[in-house]
Amino acid sequence: MDDKINLAEKVRALHEHWSPGIVGYFNDCTLAVVRVQGEFVWHKHDDTDDFFLVLDGNLTIQLRDRDVELAAGEIFVVPRGVEHCPKAKEEAHVLLIEPRGTVNTGAAGGDLTAAEVEI
Amino acid sequence: MDDKINLAEKVRALHEHWSPGIVGYFNDCTLAVVRVQGEFVWHKHDDTDDFFLVLDGNLTIQLRDRDVELAAGEIFVVPRGVEHCPKAKEEAHVLLIEPRGTVNTGAAGGDLTAAEVEI
Repeated sequence: MDDKINLAEKVRALHEHWSPGIVGYFNDCTLAVVRVQGEFVWHKHDDTDDFFLVLDGNLTIQLRDRDVELAAGEIFVVPRGVEHCPKAKEEAHVLLIEPRGTVNTGAAGGDLTAAEVEI
Repeated sequence: MDDKINLAEKVRALHEHWSPGIVGYFNDCTLAVVRVQGEFVWHKHDDTDDFFLVLDGNLTIQLRDRDVELAAGEIFVVPRGVEHCPKAKEEAHVLLIEPRGTVNTGAAGGDLTAAEVEI
């Protein structure tokens, strides 16, 4: 993990939706890529913002009062404590940044809760 | 700064090389875009890693023992304390992430030291 990270190559190593693969670290944060399709689960992170950069495709970040529509090359940072639910009609690829140990589903839990896995 | 960030649009708002524009925040970090061309200055950051994601073009991160060649869609994280000097033969566009208050030239200083500016 001490060399450059080709994001498209890393995405090709992923086989399941909503299961991020850790591709590197930046200070106390993990850098992860994820394939998404369909709807995730409503959740929030009380102790951290949530960083999304769309690499390919389109992603909707549903907030309780509006939807944020993201295309490739667009970032949205969900402020800490704000409930959100990502969804994508077609498959999209996303770069995530979050503090090490952050649970992807926050306190919501459920089947989509993923372990931290390096790829 | 509470809405989505279109990185290509933000880059169009930049007019000087090596002068990053802050496009958002993630926890204690700034998210910034920068246009680069030519050679920067050798420097290091003793207290933080240095995150580079190439958005367009090609970027070389010179380390003392090797060069890391990055194309669009590739990330390199320079570990804290490691001397490096970015350079680009043709103009390239880069996303930077660093703790708020990080000086772009580290302790090296000089003419390329840039203020933190939101765009």
